Amino acid sequence: MSRTSLPATTKLGFLGAGQLARMSALQAFRFGIQIAVFSDRTENEPVQFMTPFSTSGSFDSVDDMVTFAKECDVVTLENEFISSEILKEVQEKSGTPIFPSPESFSLIENKLIEKQTFENAGIPVTPYKLVKSKEDLEDFGKEYGWPYLLKSSKGGYDGYGNETVRDLNSAAEAFDKLGGSKGHDILAEAFVDFTHELAVQVARNETGTVVYPCCETVQENHICVAVLSPAPVSDEIRKKAQDLAVKATEAIDAKGIFAFEFFLTTDGQVLLNESAPRPHNSGHYTIEGCITSQFENHVRSVLGLPLGSTKMNKPAVAMINLLGTHNRPAQTDHIADGFNQEDGHLHVYGKLDSKVGRKMAHYTLLGDDLNTTYKLAQKLTADIEI
Amino acid sequence: MSRTSLPATTKLGFLGAGQLARMSALQAFRFGIQIAVFSDRTENEPVQFMTPFSTSGSFDSVDDMVTFAKECDVVTLENEFISSEILKEVQEKSGTPIFPSPESFSLIENKLIEKQTFENAGIPVTPYKLVKSKEDLEDFGKEYGWPYLLKSSKGGYDGYGNETVRDLNSAAEAFDKLGGSKGHDILAEAFVDFTHELAVQVARNETGTVVYPCCETVQENHICVAVLSPAPVSDEIRKKAQDLAVKATEAIDAKGIFAFEFFLTTDGQVLLNESAPRPHNSGHYTIEGCITSQFENHVRSVLGLPLGSTKMNKPAVAMINLLGTHNRPAQTDHIADGFNQEDGHLHVYGKLDSKVGRKMAHYTLLGDDLNTTYKLAQKLTADIEI
Repeated sequence: MSRTSLPATTKLGFLGAGQLARMSALQAFRFGIQIAVFSDRTENEPVQFMTPFSTSGSFDSVDDMVTFAKECDVVTLENEFISSEILKEVQEKSGTPIFPSPESFSLIENKLIEKQTFENAGIPVTPYKLVKSKEDLEDFGKEYGWPYLLKSSKGGYDGYGNETVRDLNSAAEAFDKLGGSKGHDILAEAFVDFTHELAVQVARNETGTVVYPCCETVQENHICVAVLSPAPVSDEIRKKAQDLAVKATEAIDAKGIFAFEFFLTTDGQVLLNESAPRPHNSGHYTIEGCITSQFENHVRSVLGLPLGSTKMNKPAVAMINLLGTHNRPAQTDHIADGFNQEDGHLHVYGKLDSKVGRKMAHYTLLGDDLNTTYKLAQKLTADIEI
Repeated sequence: MSRTSLPATTKLGFLGAGQLARMSALQAFRFGIQIAVFSDRTENEPVQFMTPFSTSGSFDSVDDMVTFAKECDVVTLENEFISSEILKEVQEKSGTPIFPSPESFSLIENKLIEKQTFENAGIPVTPYKLVKSKEDLEDFGKEYGWPYLLKSSKGGYDGYGNETVRDLNSAAEAFDKLGGSKGHDILAEAFVDFTHELAVQVARNETGTVVYPCCETVQENHICVAVLSPAPVSDEIRKKAQDLAVKATEAIDAKGIFAFEFFLTTDGQVLLNESAPRPHNSGHYTIEGCITSQFENHVRSVLGLPLGSTKMNKPAVAMINLLGTHNRPAQTDHIADGFNQEDGHLHVYGKLDSKVGRKMAHYTLLGDDLNTTYKLAQKLTADIEI
């Protein structure tokens, strides 16, 4: 049943107190509803400066999360760190619905299951194999060539939990480091030659499905440094990625906002790389770039509201991730150029401590031509220290 | 000195915990800073669901507000209910700057001083007189004709504190009702024949001045029911209103966001009616309608940041105020049409109790043609109950 009424006391709970909860909360507030956050950290998270309803506890404790969920009307995710089994128990014991549902999440909660789910749905994925022994490591290298990637099946983001291995020795070492010898599932994944990394967000609920433009994520050292939308590839490729992303949400009966990352290979294939059952860094540009942001459609989708248009407001958008440049109490310096640019939008995440390389803020610039817009956005943010 | 750095611990304090604080706070959060609110109410205000830093006290108590201000880096206003003398004392004793400054505010803090300030600056205002006796009431009627308006000089909004008087008897009665016999300053103001009510927002600080498009406010029973931008009047008239609004901010050395309401008289004059040293209902359309919203420029201006572009994102914007239709715990019903419209944006204020006629929410629709957009916005919101 889609929702046609919003009581003022509606409370949306976030399991996780990171940036994505913070940015979705800003949208929830626009609908006049309240938000609550459940944090597994001891330090203050920025979203906790935005609500009096903040609880701390463990992502492994059903009881902690049941107490939290009982205070909420709907609970949603902002990371992938809780197991679907635990989510299911929290949902059952609290009586509060969780979206994306534990059932959907169980189909993508670790990299092995995720690959199998999407492969079974006919979505091309990067070649992979569950590796359990030195022999497996060697076989994979023989079949797909060196180097390749080892990934811990659970957890990991921004390149953490991934290791590039160049030969059997480094493979064995990385296998140990990722916990393979302790019984953790480790995936070998072939390197694919690609020209672009693409991403697509999809929001879906009982009222329908909306798909965002296919954008490019520009990566340096496995960290996304910029997002360009629409991706500078052919209409046909963008359409292909969008179609696959929608198909992927159908395969898991998704309700919520999801992000899908793809490789466009040198021979023109679009291969699904990773998925996320939540708003995603690749969709931050949608705040100003699209009529309805990924955060608004996050809130709409989990509340059962009709979904909003994903059309772009301008022909081109560049989003620059502003990574920490210092280890220090956070402050954003040299921001005037960014502020002085028409249709340039600075978002600072309010993290109290800056660390070199940590995602601290982003800057979105709207324009008419992608290349010009990207170059200008880079120039305007070049002096920012944070 | 304009600001070029934003520490993460920057805390912006709002004296007042109403909707305008709430909407400015949403923008402050985008810059990663923290907000605190000082409320003079006993009941929970929606903004208090958005921050753990909430204090209650009296707008007459310097001590209450000094304690609050000391916790903030900058304090700003969201209403006109505190006297400039008290604000000055709070600023001095706390050491925390208040913007708009007590000095600026002292020049507009009551309707009499406001009229004199702007008249002295050469800005045409509606004809008025301070009335102190039955004789004054009669004289004003003779000079400007009946009916005319009586206004209490201090306080009053949305038509409260105003009385239309048709003859000497009703004038004497209203004079008493508004506190004239208790020594409150009462202003008589001539009715002017007008074709449109216009409004202009201006943001100003040490980095410069930006002026928003001149919009029309559509009023019913002294309550604004809709705002149309740009106002459907000539370019020349809009320019005139904008110029007068900028001149008005200069006259009070404004730092912050200000709104100015004008009458366009049947004989083509643009007369300043009222001003507000804060975001204003007439500027809610700027959230989606302009590149930088009045709330963002509120935050930018009081923090000393460069101001953002006020250009419109689409040629036409209609904003419909959604007034309470029931006396009940607040909930917004029949919202699907509004959500289903591309570029229609629902904002609900999160007030816990709905009262008939109370401003509870608004709906903004962007389009290409003002008349079509206004009609469609009215249609899409016609069934909403709240």
